[in-house]
Amino acid sequence: MSETPTGNATRGAQAPVAQEDAGGVLTLARDLIRCPSVTPDDGCAIDVLAAVLRQMGFAVTPLVFGEGGARTPNLFARLGTGHPHVCFAGHTDVVPVGDAAWRSDPFGAQIHDGLLYGRGACDMKGGIAAFVAAVRCYLARHGGRVPGSISLLITGDEEGPATNGTVRVLEWMEAQGQVPDFCLVGEPTNPQQMGEVIKIGRRGSLNATITVKGVQGHVAYPHRADNPVHRLLALLQELTAVPLDTGSEWFEPSSLQVTSIDVGNSATNVIPATACARLNIRFNDLHTGADLSGWIRTVCARHAPGADVQIRISGESFLTQPTAGVDALRDAVAKVTGHAPRLDTGGGTSDARFISRYCPVAEFGLVGASMHKADEHVPVADLTQLTRIYDMFLERLMA
Amino acid sequence: MSETPTGNATRGAQAPVAQEDAGGVLTLARDLIRCPSVTPDDGCAIDVLAAVLRQMGFAVTPLVFGEGGARTPNLFARLGTGHPHVCFAGHTDVVPVGDAAWRSDPFGAQIHDGLLYGRGACDMKGGIAAFVAAVRCYLARHGGRVPGSISLLITGDEEGPATNGTVRVLEWMEAQGQVPDFCLVGEPTNPQQMGEVIKIGRRGSLNATITVKGVQGHVAYPHRADNPVHRLLALLQELTAVPLDTGSEWFEPSSLQVTSIDVGNSATNVIPATACARLNIRFNDLHTGADLSGWIRTVCARHAPGADVQIRISGESFLTQPTAGVDALRDAVAKVTGHAPRLDTGGGTSDARFISRYCPVAEFGLVGASMHKADEHVPVADLTQLTRIYDMFLERLMA
Repeated sequence: MSETPTGNATRGAQAPVAQEDAGGVLTLARDLIRCPSVTPDDGCAIDVLAAVLRQMGFAVTPLVFGEGGARTPNLFARLGTGHPHVCFAGHTDVVPVGDAAWRSDPFGAQIHDGLLYGRGACDMKGGIAAFVAAVRCYLARHGGRVPGSISLLITGDEEGPATNGTVRVLEWMEAQGQVPDFCLVGEPTNPQQMGEVIKIGRRGSLNATITVKGVQGHVAYPHRADNPVHRLLALLQELTAVPLDTGSEWFEPSSLQVTSIDVGNSATNVIPATACARLNIRFNDLHTGADLSGWIRTVCARHAPGADVQIRISGESFLTQPTAGVDALRDAVAKVTGHAPRLDTGGGTSDARFISRYCPVAEFGLVGASMHKADEHVPVADLTQLTRIYDMFLERLMA
Repeated sequence: MSETPTGNATRGAQAPVAQEDAGGVLTLARDLIRCPSVTPDDGCAIDVLAAVLRQMGFAVTPLVFGEGGARTPNLFARLGTGHPHVCFAGHTDVVPVGDAAWRSDPFGAQIHDGLLYGRGACDMKGGIAAFVAAVRCYLARHGGRVPGSISLLITGDEEGPATNGTVRVLEWMEAQGQVPDFCLVGEPTNPQQMGEVIKIGRRGSLNATITVKGVQGHVAYPHRADNPVHRLLALLQELTAVPLDTGSEWFEPSSLQVTSIDVGNSATNVIPATACARLNIRFNDLHTGADLSGWIRTVCARHAPGADVQIRISGESFLTQPTAGVDALRDAVAKVTGHAPRLDTGGGTSDARFISRYCPVAEFGLVGASMHKADEHVPVADLTQLTRIYDMFLERLMA
């Protein structure tokens, strides 16, 4: 498909749309990409979205959290007040353009050969546009009414520190009695093609920094020194000797990776005074951050008493056991794409780890192959397909 | 003892000397310390020594090796031409003064409370002075004649790269048919007090740098990466798992020390591309540098095929089995100090490793506790005692 001119004039319009712009998905995706919302800047993306949702009848609540440079714009919008309350969660901020050259303006939203190019095309302005378009399609079939309620939790701080984003909006939602019955996160979950993967959980993540202090000395007299490198080797050997587990029903095996060891001793005849290692654990539901922390500290104490052990748990693992929401999503994906999606818990972390504390949550979106890279893009056909999937998901869940 | 004025006017003089200046040891030690011969500078120390030796009847050959900035002054001096030919080896260069403050000028050779202060006092201008003084005493008792011959191999490059020093002089000596029957190195061998240790060998030394290349990747997807830190840990684990040996008749156990590991990866979510480790082995006569190199390469190849392994052998181990020279030295030390010296092969390396290729060699000198430190010093009484030991050693060996 060659360049198809569209403009802001069609934003939110209820006019008939072309086949590839079902529910206005392409128009909204392009409008959002044209807002240069490189985290932590908002680039008016949330305002553009808020205007569309208001026009569709959503009650829109802008939620700005944080002070000064950490001020983060967020948005909660809800249509209807009943149950089931289905929430779509996503982010309008994008990662930087990067150093590599793009074939066209990263914020130009141009279309070449059926592919929509732009930062955020698949991660995840395209996903947001598809959900909004799906709601339009659903409402068009149901006379503008929804039996339960549909909401959107949108943050401008997912790619950044994620401090004043989803976490704060969820606290606000709980305080307002607006906790959903099910949440769908629109992150790109498919590795290569639409319909491959629904994520129903994520592994937890833990970072540890271990600093061992020894006694410096000459290599010719090791008995007068205490080599901290050897103590560090011994404790890392124990930490890496046995796999943490062999995986569980829904999770692949947990993984411990030593990411750095640093001593910085340039003298070949000197036993150094200090040695430092850093490691990351991605852990499944057979572990907790606290259990793993305790294990690391015990091993360190055995081989290097007095070692300084700093541990930060970025997130616990979580799992949404297949429920009505997951079933509806799986069914919709299979019907629209012809593929039976795999229920998966692999990969990195997302804001779903925060949402899982409040309600069942699953993730399904576009193909992520080009995300965070130069020439990020999404096939226009995938946008249309995702709109149909979200529409059918709403249809099944609201039935 | 308080400050005792001595001056250059007494240099080489045959005038009667005080009890503490037997054979002129104190005078010569002070004259040598006053030459600021911080390696690679000579500070005229070799000229001062050459003048003294000529006056005593030695045939002195200055030997300058190397070009430009690497020009190294050395000296070979021999008294007599017969056998046994006993050679004394030493160096006039000293290590830098260092950053710490000294109680008096490091090149002032002042005496406070019976201690002679100065850079090189114990390492090893004091040792050179004691040997020269011992020869004077020996000659005084024997009518100025020696039955065999006595020589000195003196270099100005022991504390530096040692390229154009002892190694080159030995080559010259061999070419001239002047290889000794026994060599005594005057390095400070005693840890705390005179008479503790005679060194009859040294361990070898080997340095290895091992660089493992892996495949960089995200910690959440370890199966798509190849963590070089884990390969490095595995090979270091194997290299350090079992002691190299339990020692041999004259040597303590060999020792492998990992001196540094460096990755330099600051990202907590990235598996790095490269990891580097450095290690040093001090090895006894149960190993050779070649055998150890082969073992290291085999272990690296098993855990990290393609790893870059750089190995440098600074010196092989060597041992002088107790012979006539060692017996004479042990006997002299015991008689003068009242202690039975331990025959030892521990500690760092010295030029004795080069000499051992040509003839039996042993090392005995002053107490090394203050060497390479601020306020390097030697008790004047130790200088006198060492002169007596060397004198008695000559007496026994020439008998």
